[in-house]
Amino acid sequence: MKLRVYVTLKSGVLDPQGEAVRHALAALGFDGVNSVRQGKMIELDLAEQDATKAVSMAEDMCEKLLANTVIESYRIEPV
Amino acid sequence: MKLRVYVTLKSGVLDPQGEAVRHALAALGFDGVNSVRQGKMIELDLAEQDATKAVSMAEDMCEKLLANTVIESYRIEPV
Repeated sequence: MKLRVYVTLKSGVLDPQGEAVRHALAALGFDGVNSVRQGKMIELDLAEQDATKAVSMAEDMCEKLLANTVIESYRIEPV
Repeated sequence: MKLRVYVTLKSGVLDPQGEAVRHALAALGFDGVNSVRQGKMIELDLAEQDATKAVSMAEDMCEKLLANTVIESYRIEPV
């Protein structure tokens, strides 16, 4: 089954990439951009068909590889 | 208002970053991962309060900066 994993920086963690995008948008003439934060989206296609097992496997992947849980949080959604 | 922009590679476009994640997952012992594709998630906090105007502004941002529309597609969602 297919899952989407969203990995975002925890609030309070500085996001230089998002800040750079905000500056670039301002330079292009977009006013009124209060803040920009950038995260990752990972689409997983797993052979596992059972939703509960697939989500639990994806959680395990997040803890071990996909997210740095010190500064990032993650959210898993079935597609 | 807050919007989330999801930028993904169009299907058919090679995704070396996703492929690298798939290999790393296999090396960690995760079996049954058919494919991995990685995209970007951008959270925008705009001063604009009107939803229609905010989404149209975000579309403009995607066309001009956030997405490379030759190889990437984007999706905008109000939070």
